[in-house]
Amino acid sequence: MTYCVAVKLNAGLVFLSDSRTNAGLDQISTFRKMIVYEKPGNRFMCLLSAGNLSISQSIREILQSEHLKDPDSDEPITIWNAKSMFDAARVLGQAVRHVQLRDGEALRRAGVDFNVSMIFGGQIAGEGMRLFQVYSAGNFIEATPETPFFQIGESKYGKPVLDRVITPTTPLDEAAKCALVSMDSTLKSNLSVGLPLDLAVYEVDRFESDKIVCIDENNPYFRMVRTTWGEKLREVFDAIEHPAWDGHATEVPLLHPSRRNQPLRKIANAGERLI
Amino acid sequence: MTYCVAVKLNAGLVFLSDSRTNAGLDQISTFRKMIVYEKPGNRFMCLLSAGNLSISQSIREILQSEHLKDPDSDEPITIWNAKSMFDAARVLGQAVRHVQLRDGEALRRAGVDFNVSMIFGGQIAGEGMRLFQVYSAGNFIEATPETPFFQIGESKYGKPVLDRVITPTTPLDEAAKCALVSMDSTLKSNLSVGLPLDLAVYEVDRFESDKIVCIDENNPYFRMVRTTWGEKLREVFDAIEHPAWDGHATEVPLLHPSRRNQPLRKIANAGERLI
Repeated sequence: MTYCVAVKLNAGLVFLSDSRTNAGLDQISTFRKMIVYEKPGNRFMCLLSAGNLSISQSIREILQSEHLKDPDSDEPITIWNAKSMFDAARVLGQAVRHVQLRDGEALRRAGVDFNVSMIFGGQIAGEGMRLFQVYSAGNFIEATPETPFFQIGESKYGKPVLDRVITPTTPLDEAAKCALVSMDSTLKSNLSVGLPLDLAVYEVDRFESDKIVCIDENNPYFRMVRTTWGEKLREVFDAIEHPAWDGHATEVPLLHPSRRNQPLRKIANAGERLI
Repeated sequence: MTYCVAVKLNAGLVFLSDSRTNAGLDQISTFRKMIVYEKPGNRFMCLLSAGNLSISQSIREILQSEHLKDPDSDEPITIWNAKSMFDAARVLGQAVRHVQLRDGEALRRAGVDFNVSMIFGGQIAGEGMRLFQVYSAGNFIEATPETPFFQIGESKYGKPVLDRVITPTTPLDEAAKCALVSMDSTLKSNLSVGLPLDLAVYEVDRFESDKIVCIDENNPYFRMVRTTWGEKLREVFDAIEHPAWDGHATEVPLLHPSRRNQPLRKIANAGERLI
């Protein structure tokens, strides 16, 4: 499996991906799931992919070749000449459909779903940053201020901390930290997600980034985050009072001030069955 | 959907369930998913169920009726006369199979999976506590010291805190608190899980429990847990240093001491496409 997350903030974009791929439990490999497309001064784009690796690799290959044509002008269109991020996302959607048409039926005959999902975001000179989630049908949705992040793959373990922290006004480095904490929770609870990680942080209107890094188990910052988060979480947990079950501890909020609404309870006395 | 969790500790058992049921997004109801079977001095059992509600309700109905026979003695067997928790789990498995035989084919024709999963645990006089997870085929697994908790339904959001806290030596009230924090993360990130909650805490060798409570949005303890956990989590998050991207801040662990192993990066210069 995979875990990828991307966040769109007023200050920029954050992308984070793991690198574990498995075909069954006994065939586990490392494949990088992030690819950065950069033309300094003109465009910065980042693509994260989850799902069937053969599909996502084919899509990545087609994405920058000239197999695709602009349906309006019939000119070859790639992510390098797309005029807007929306057009670039359409190119990506077309690439997904191209692979689906080519491979989908054969995969189906082999009992394999056409399973791929992607996060694609960036900025092209002349417009603001945009962030998209692209589905296996080639359709896509865009992040908005109300929903400023997308996750693909094993997204549930790491969602609570994103829900609590991320808003459009979150600073870039804070969002990067939050993405790493979200990844840490996922790594801790799911073996199908694994190191190394790829992290890319893009500042608005820069059209390039020097904050792109591969994080392995020796990375001092990520080690610090993992250790500190784990220890502090435990301290916070310990600091919360235990539930009080009777009226003696008046300082502590009671778990049940009344006994109303108890769950369904069936009691058998002396061998007799009562409902 | 559903979220249920149960923990087996040296000190006892903790069971927690939500109560939201949905058939499609526009048909949301409240059904209690916990049922307690208690014969004071002789047995205490608790059943949590997830999946198709018609299936789990049928199973619960059969479970204590006398439709099932012990395959060895051909005597009627229910959870009230089972001699051990393992036998009681077998009764539960038989009840699942009974419903599957009766309803499975009709459900299949209607395009509905035979989807049910359950957690079942307790203690019968004469043996120790046991905790089982029962699958839709009626087979089951038992919790061990290495894996002292089971979750069913929307289990992923709430797994990280259980992974960090629960061991067999965790005190009962601490495990109850942990289950509630786990539920809070799930409630926060998934609308298909909802209040009220049912919480049952069983102390070893008691064969009954007075720590069974229904928790709604007004419960003072759960409100305190939710508020405190959210606030403190945020404080811990804020207290972790942001990543440092250059060598100036020597106090802070660097996110990338070296630039080796950067992710795949493609750069186009002056309109030319380079791979």
